[in-house]
Amino acid sequence: MKFLQKLEEASKKNKSLLCVGLDPDLSKIPRNFRDKLDPIFEFNKNIINQTKDYVCAYKPNAAFYEALGNPGTESLKRTIEYVKVFGIPVILDAKRGDIGNSSAAYAKAAFDVLRADAITVSPYMGKDSVQPFLDYRDKGVFVLCLTSNEGSRDFQAFMYMKVAEAVSKWNNNGNCGLVVGATRPEQLKEISAVSGDMPILIPGVGAQQGDLEAVVKNGGPRPIINSSRGIIYDKDPHRAAKELRDRINELLSS
Amino acid sequence: MKFLQKLEEASKKNKSLLCVGLDPDLSKIPRNFRDKLDPIFEFNKNIINQTKDYVCAYKPNAAFYEALGNPGTESLKRTIEYVKVFGIPVILDAKRGDIGNSSAAYAKAAFDVLRADAITVSPYMGKDSVQPFLDYRDKGVFVLCLTSNEGSRDFQAFMYMKVAEAVSKWNNNGNCGLVVGATRPEQLKEISAVSGDMPILIPGVGAQQGDLEAVVKNGGPRPIINSSRGIIYDKDPHRAAKELRDRINELLSS
Repeated sequence: MKFLQKLEEASKKNKSLLCVGLDPDLSKIPRNFRDKLDPIFEFNKNIINQTKDYVCAYKPNAAFYEALGNPGTESLKRTIEYVKVFGIPVILDAKRGDIGNSSAAYAKAAFDVLRADAITVSPYMGKDSVQPFLDYRDKGVFVLCLTSNEGSRDFQAFMYMKVAEAVSKWNNNGNCGLVVGATRPEQLKEISAVSGDMPILIPGVGAQQGDLEAVVKNGGPRPIINSSRGIIYDKDPHRAAKELRDRINELLSS
Repeated sequence: MKFLQKLEEASKKNKSLLCVGLDPDLSKIPRNFRDKLDPIFEFNKNIINQTKDYVCAYKPNAAFYEALGNPGTESLKRTIEYVKVFGIPVILDAKRGDIGNSSAAYAKAAFDVLRADAITVSPYMGKDSVQPFLDYRDKGVFVLCLTSNEGSRDFQAFMYMKVAEAVSKWNNNGNCGLVVGATRPEQLKEISAVSGDMPILIPGVGAQQGDLEAVVKNGGPRPIINSSRGIIYDKDPHRAAKELRDRINELLSS
């Protein structure tokens, strides 16, 4: 099934635009998981069990798994397999990008080895560095446009509209998306004005109703609103995910 | 030992500015290696044995190893360990970059888990995305500036001088470098005019003496000239590495 279709089915079934970021940090996960054979997977499995009825996607960030060496990558693989059971798409947040044959190898790692449904990539090296990912027509490719961190002012500030416009043109297989941080609502509006019906993955939603409102209003026709630490380290991830999903839906219909 | 010191010692000992890219592709490596238990490592080990007296560094590209899953990462780890025996630094070509805590996890993966001496990173997300790598003072951090592929015209063309100037300012720990493709000799000259004594990693050297001459002339005081496929898939990697090293040295002294 194509990524976009899978995303829309999960979104419809769970009435949700919420994506939960699976960024497990061994030092932050509750003690009872740390004694298990595969603590990272067990922690994720619990989060997934508690939130699977309130999300449209999950987004594991590859960095947290790679930092643990091969056991970490194994936990990531098991996590992706586990999510698949529920028909929810997995966006691998990997921010990859290299010249053609190297990007092709990264695409293989993400889509064939780890079996993710979508990936985040960096645009810095240009179209031919992104093409090997786009060639997987059933997979989603979210290109970094304007991120939520302070450093986005260094170079992205001058480039994000160029990137948004370029990616719209690269979208021949209908599998492109953009990444735009929630901390830039005005620019999000500008970007969604040129990004057509491409999904926009929006990380960086804080606890503030204000930010969220602007994101929902400016995120285009297919916003995917990501929260990571705010949900996975909450005492009650089930309630935290349900509440955030409901708040997004209220803002949508208001 | 600091990366730069290690690089200079290897460079001096081997009278070499040549870096060999270890980008093994299972479908291209000779049949006799494919029957081994760890074909990728055995292939690399042979290349290293044949070229170790003619190089200043090795540069494995992470993509080729990740595409093989955990066994690939294991081959990469063994390759890096093997190179260490000869005191030659390893630049992990990974082109990573993410927000702060994720970049810190990538830095951990590259420097603590894989034990590379240096890494390549993408500047797109700005200074705070690179800082966690820079914080490893003994490790080298090569920031993508202007790459050798066609797609470098899409966005980098507008940014490379901004990147070169910014990285010069980020270099408080003296561990920054730049990546500039050999296919842009004029721009390489422009960049090396502002990059001070930072090493410039230069991939994309073809078989043409012309390119190489421009690279040697314009690559600043510390060029690291990379060849991957041109050496590792040569029938005689020993001769290929020696010849390229010697040609670079001739051009240097002419």
